[in-house]
Parts: sequence; C-alpha cells; structure tokens
Amino acid sequence: MKKMNLFRFVAVAMCLLSFIPARSQQPEEATVIRNIFNEALTSYEAYHNLEKLCKTTAGRICGRPEAAEAVELTRQIMIGMHLDSVWLQPVMVKSWDRGEKEIARIVSGKFGTVAVPSCALGWAIGTGDPGLSARVVEVKSLQELKAKPRSEIEGRIVFFNQPMKQTNLGTFTSYGEAVWQRTSGPAEAGKLGAIGCVIRSMSIEIDDFPHTGITHYEDAVKPIPAIAISTKAAEILSSWLAVDKDLNFYFRTTCLAGPDVPSFNVIGELRGSESPNEIITVGGHLDAWDIAQGAHDDGGGCIQSIEVLRLFQKNGIRPKHTVRAVMFMDEEVAQRGGQQYASEASAKKEKQIAALESDRGVFQPKAMAVTGNAEQMKKYATWQPLFDPYDIKLISGGGGADVGPLKKFYPDILFMGIIPEDQRYFKLHHATTDTFDQVDRREMQMGAAGMATLIYLYDKFGL
Amino acid sequence: MKKMNLFRFVAVAMCLLSFIPARSQQPEEATVIRNIFNEALTSYEAYHNLEKLCKTTAGRICGRPEAAEAVELTRQIMIGMHLDSVWLQPVMVKSWDRGEKEIARIVSGKFGTVAVPSCALGWAIGTGDPGLSARVVEVKSLQELKAKPRSEIEGRIVFFNQPMKQTNLGTFTSYGEAVWQRTSGPAEAGKLGAIGCVIRSMSIEIDDFPHTGITHYEDAVKPIPAIAISTKAAEILSSWLAVDKDLNFYFRTTCLAGPDVPSFNVIGELRGSESPNEIITVGGHLDAWDIAQGAHDDGGGCIQSIEVLRLFQKNGIRPKHTVRAVMFMDEEVAQRGGQQYASEASAKKEKQIAALESDRGVFQPKAMAVTGNAEQMKKYATWQPLFDPYDIKLISGGGGADVGPLKKFYPDILFMGIIPEDQRYFKLHHATTDTFDQVDRREMQMGAAGMATLIYLYDKFGL
Repeated sequence: MKKMNLFRFVAVAMCLLSFIPARSQQPEEATVIRNIFNEALTSYEAYHNLEKLCKTTAGRICGRPEAAEAVELTRQIMIGMHLDSVWLQPVMVKSWDRGEKEIARIVSGKFGTVAVPSCALGWAIGTGDPGLSARVVEVKSLQELKAKPRSEIEGRIVFFNQPMKQTNLGTFTSYGEAVWQRTSGPAEAGKLGAIGCVIRSMSIEIDDFPHTGITHYEDAVKPIPAIAISTKAAEILSSWLAVDKDLNFYFRTTCLAGPDVPSFNVIGELRGSESPNEIITVGGHLDAWDIAQGAHDDGGGCIQSIEVLRLFQKNGIRPKHTVRAVMFMDEEVAQRGGQQYASEASAKKEKQIAALESDRGVFQPKAMAVTGNAEQMKKYATWQPLFDPYDIKLISGGGGADVGPLKKFYPDILFMGIIPEDQRYFKLHHATTDTFDQVDRREMQMGAAGMATLIYLYDKFGL
Repeated sequence: MKKMNLFRFVAVAMCLLSFIPARSQQPEEATVIRNIFNEALTSYEAYHNLEKLCKTTAGRICGRPEAAEAVELTRQIMIGMHLDSVWLQPVMVKSWDRGEKEIARIVSGKFGTVAVPSCALGWAIGTGDPGLSARVVEVKSLQELKAKPRSEIEGRIVFFNQPMKQTNLGTFTSYGEAVWQRTSGPAEAGKLGAIGCVIRSMSIEIDDFPHTGITHYEDAVKPIPAIAISTKAAEILSSWLAVDKDLNFYFRTTCLAGPDVPSFNVIGELRGSESPNEIITVGGHLDAWDIAQGAHDDGGGCIQSIEVLRLFQKNGIRPKHTVRAVMFMDEEVAQRGGQQYASEASAKKEKQIAALESDRGVFQPKAMAVTGNAEQMKKYATWQPLFDPYDIKLISGGGGADVGPLKKFYPDILFMGIIPEDQRYFKLHHATTDTFDQVDRREMQMGAAGMATLIYLYDKFGL
C-alpha cells in the first residue's frame, strides 16, 4: 500500500468512524447476534421438538397423563443438550376430566333443532346425565345481566354473547375486553339463579370451533354447568332468540374436577461464569388445553425457551449470569407452577434478576419488551440498532402469568417479553385448531433468536 | 363552563394543535381510513370469494379449463358488486399440459432405489415413455457448470442444487438468488449436452414438496426434460452422490406444450367522478400453477384488488380518478395479460396514472411501496402518520410483472406495491401447499385495507 493511499484510507476510515455512536456495541455484538439469527434460521431442532411435543402429548392440561409425558419429553430434550443442570421441580396441581364429548343443541319450535359445536369450560361442573335443558336469556354485558330482574334469570340458561371486537388491531385487546364472560360469567349467572351458562367462544373469527378455557366459580355461589359454543353457533342462537324467545337450549357435559395431583416444572440451565447465583429465567408453560395440541399456546414458547439455551451453546456464548429455561406447569388453571418456582427461588435465596416469558404464540416477532425504570429504558433503547436488521422493535412491556409471581419476592426483577404478530392467535387459542401445522418454523425461530439476543445483551451489559 | 376554565381549555388546545404538522390531513382522512380498516376487518366477503376461487378453480394455469372458470367466477363476483363497468379483455395465452403424474427415483448400487417427490417444470418438454435414466452431475452454481468439460456433462443429467439461503431475512432475496436454476438451468445444461435436468425445488424449507415454475428454453438450444424434486430429496441425492458417483437418476414426464388459446383479463372499475379517463390500476394475477390452489400466489392478490373497490363502495368513497381492478391472466408463463392490458390501454389512449400490484402473498402487510421521484417520495412520506396506527411503513418499491409493461407506454406512471411478511411464502410458492387454509382472513384484509388506503390518498391528493 502506497503512503498516499494509506493516508487516504485512514482519513476515510476516521470519517466513517465519526458516524458511529460513541457507545456503540458494533461490531462484536452485531456479529454475535447475526450468528444467533443464522443458527436459528438454519436449524430444525426446535421445530422437530415442537412437533414431537404437539403430536405425542396433545391435550396436556395439568393433572393429565399427557402432561406427565410432556414433562418427561422436555426433560429428555434438555438432558440431550448437555446443559449444566436439568431437574424437575415438584408442584401439586389441580386435576379435572372433561368426560364424554359434550352435546349441545338449540331446540326451537319455530326453527327446529340444531346441534352446535361446544366444549365445557375448564373446571366447570358437568350437567351429568341426562343433561340440562332450559329457556335462554341472552346478554352482551355484565351490566345487562345485572339490570335484569332475578325472575328473568332464575331457572334459565344465561347466554353470554359479547363478540371479540374484530376492529381492534391488537387482538389481545379484544380478548381482554371479552374474556370476563368465560372467567366470571358462570359465577355471575349463578348468583342470579341461572341453572346453566352458554358462552360465545373467545374466537376472533366467525367459525365452527368451540374454545375452552378456565372459568372461576365463587365460593359463596353454587356452581352451574357452563359450555362454550362456536361463534357461528352463537350467531345462530342469537338470531333465533330474536324471533323465538321460548326456544330451549340443551346441553350435556360429564366433566368432573378431581383431587390435587403431583406434577413438575421442568428446568434446565446454563450456569453463569461470573455470577452463577444471579438468574435470568426464560420460560413458557408446558400445559395446554385438553382439546388442543398446544402448539402456539404454549408448546412453542417452551421450545423457544429451550432454543435460547441451544443458541447460546451453539454460538459459544457463556453467560455471566445463569440462564435458566423453565417449562412452567399449570398456567391455564391456577398458575401453580409459576407460584412454586417463585417461592422456591426465594426459599433457596436465589437472586432472580430478570425473567422473560413467551406466551403469545410463536408468530413473527414484532417487538421485544422490557419493564424498567426510566434509566433502564434509556439504556435499553440504545440497543435498538442491534435489533433493526431483524425488524424487531424495542418497546416497554413484558412479564406474564408464570413469571409474575417472582415480583412478590424480587421487587426489582426485570421483566422481559416477546410480542409476536397476533392476527392469527385468537382463531386457534384454546381450540382444536391450535396445531403444529399452524406454526411456521422461520417465524418461531426468529422469535427464539430475538429472545436469545435480548438475554445475551442483558447478560453482557445489564440494564 | 367558567371563564377561567375556558381560557385554560383554549390554551391547552392551542398547545396541542401546535404539535400537529401544518399540512396534516387529520382528522377527515384518518376517519375514512379507520372506516376502511374497520370494514375490511369485519367483512367475510373477500375471504369467502377467495375460498371459492381456490376450491373450485384450483390449478388454473393459463390455457386450462380451470383458468376459464376463474375468469367467469371473478367476472360474476364483480358483476354482483354493481361496479360501473365489468368486462373481459381477450388475450391469447400459451397452453401446456402436465400429463400423467411424474415419476422420479434415485437408483444407487450402494444405497438402493428411492422414489422422490417431483414435478415437471412449467413448459418443460416431457421425457415421454419409458422415461429417462442417466448418471448425474451435481452443480451449485452456473460457474461450476460452465467450468466443467463438456465430456462430463454430455449424456448426463445435470442436478442443480443451490439451496435458497435460509439466513436471508427477506426470503424474496433468497428466491432471487436461486431461481436462475429453474428458469435457465435446463437451457444451460442443454447447451453442454446434458439429456435431462433435475432442480432442487425453490423452497425455503427442507421438506417433501416439489415446487414447479416456468423454465425458459433458448431457441438455439435443444430443449431437455426438466423436473424439480423436493428439497429433502435434493439433500438425499446430494449425499448419495458424494459416496456413489455412479448412481442413476430416473424420471418420466409426459408434459406437452399446446397451441396458443384464447383467454381473458377480467376487469372491473369504479368510474372517476372528476377525471374518468385517468386510471389507477390495482391488480393481481388470476392464473396459478396447475398443482396449486393458488391461494397466496395469487388468488389472494386478485381478491384483495376486488376488495379495494368494495371498500371504496362500502365507505361511500367516490374516487376522482377511475379505479380499476384487473385480474391479469398468465403472469406465471409469459405475462401476456399484462402486456395486452398495457398495449390496449395505450391504443385506446387511456391515461394510466398509477398501478398497484399485489403478488407477494396475502400475509400481514408490513409496508406499502411507491416508486417516485424525490418530490413524490417527500409528499408520500407525509402520509406515514396515517398508516402508523396500522403498523404499515411507507417505503420505496412497487411495480411487478403484470403492471410492469405499462411503463413502456406510460413512462411517468407511478408504480405502487404492497409488502407483506414473507417468512411463510416460499414454503408454499408454486407448490401443492399453497392452499386456502394457509390464508388468514385478518392478514389478507389488513393488506386490502392498506392497498385501499394508499389508493384513496393518491386519488385525493396525488403525488
């Protein structure tokens, strides 16, 4: 290289450098992150593991044998990865059995009889044989229910029919607005003397699939049987009722709650090289509704959490803090796994510093979220350029039902989260449609890489 | 309202107003756009029409009876909408018949014989009975092929095996890098005396589905039979070849090109209230590969284009310029529909001012694109706040194979485009997996609403 050329080279280089922010983590971190994404996008390991989980342990609601199989499967997956440690954390969970396939039909003198797709709500009591038949009172809000005289409700079936709002751009908002019908509708109807409860499924689409999910009875209220019917069936029931107030609804469920039974959280970790007692938790919930494969809710989140560890291993990232993947048991029912994990961490004097939960489906990631104070958020925002190539925004948010209980013992814990695209989620959430074939490998892996990246940066630089 | 309060109210209002850009189109346009999205998100009309198109006219490659059925179906859909005009534009298209189901197998003395999933490339010649068998030369680049002595190629089958790069974040880039194998691989192999050609399918995934697509022979080169095999089969063939150079590949195809046959572009329009002879074209291509339902490629783009008109109608938007939805025939083979549309527009002295093509799948829209000069792009950027609520970026780009020919006659035409998420596209592109059930209604409708919004703003304010 001639002198003049060298001079010009240095001048140009200095000029270019002047455009790079002073505290930029380029290029070392950018390279590591690129490698994380490359490995994620070219690997089929997580995807094949999710397939196995979905297809061999479908219906793994807590207390069921399928849940025990899922525990063993994910334990074996993590053992096969030669992590620093893999163990089971015992937790007692509730049990419940759906019983025989539900039967539901609308019986109208004017329109005839039609069978409708239905499923019992989770932890609902059954009607038993020979089922339950009554006239129907339709309401679209709690106010509407409460405004009615008791005489109009007593001995009837209350039909909650507030649709999930399709015009919300974020479908979680629609779910949040409507899910009260499922969680507290039966209890509220029971208070007014209703003998049964029919819920419009929590689906964003008008289709034929009933969606289950937990309902909460209240101690002081006699529980009443409760089912969800498909949104299309809800539309039919509503339109028939508009003309034939005297129609009857019949349903038969044989579901039954059982005693508490032993189960486990499944945990694997990469031990921290500098502060092994400071723990970054990344997890999803292993249980899934008994009618579903639980691919997006939340087998995918579990497998992504394991994948974070594999992406660290494969790229030779030895974390300074311990990074722990947790498959929480029983998110869907009573969040016992999350509670057990938090209280045991506290009892063992672990230092839980951060927790990332993936439980919004494994679609294309739009954002990674952090809940921090102003100073933390400011530092966090400086990482945005590292996520820009992957079209992932850094926003505030994070936490979740399983990592939430940690806050009680670790008020300063940093909650993180992943926010995927959500247009497709609520047509399969808690329904038979939540199957492996609805998962795109690249989308799931982009999410896992985003999670690994956030944890890598937090582990290295803190917040 | 007390005086003091009124004063404070005005002060606060003025303060707030000072943050609104001087030339903001808020709030009237924002309300219209919100209504466009609301209507899109709550309607099932386009979705049901796409289902009908996919399920009753699957395999509608140009020249086939299914294509004629698709012409009639979309014509009827637009007639049912009471547009200002609906008509068919005749165009002569090529015809080709795949013939009997393809047979392909690897025959190795060392590993045995295995049948592999395959399909003939579009417009390839067939092997005829009894098929073709030869030793295999694997190459991963054109350079590699050309560097080989003719003696190594002559009488052999050339196997093009350059994978679509999974680490690209945009999968269209990967397609662009690899698709030469399909389009010109057989011609290049033929030049060197190969007797057949096997192509690794243009799939971003390692799976069992062969992907078809057009291949272009060259006039001076004797055409040779050519098939695509699944990516998984390509991996097997490659790994066997590494050990057994003498293995044979056998395939049998009976495909046959036919004469040109008459077909149509299907066109419907809303006439402009002020400048009816100035036309904004929005379209997709109606033809789809013969092995696919063509849901994402490009039935969805056609139906979105019709939906733009419906969203205008439903929201009482009377465009100043004519807005025309065009279902182009024959994008996949020779783009005859696009050429016919452009030359006829010119012959009729229409003034084509803008054209938006949707042909990248109907996934969640990420961006709307425009190709304009600096001044146009500057004005366009001022519309970004109107798209922000829908998480749609305004970027440069647009155009496409069908609207492209307009440029020849209208050098100043403004090309627009829609850029959806693309992680899922290339596992179904040109394959049997491109089915209606892979389309999410909300995602498709968000795209249609984004298209309608861009056209609405352009029609109202120009660029």
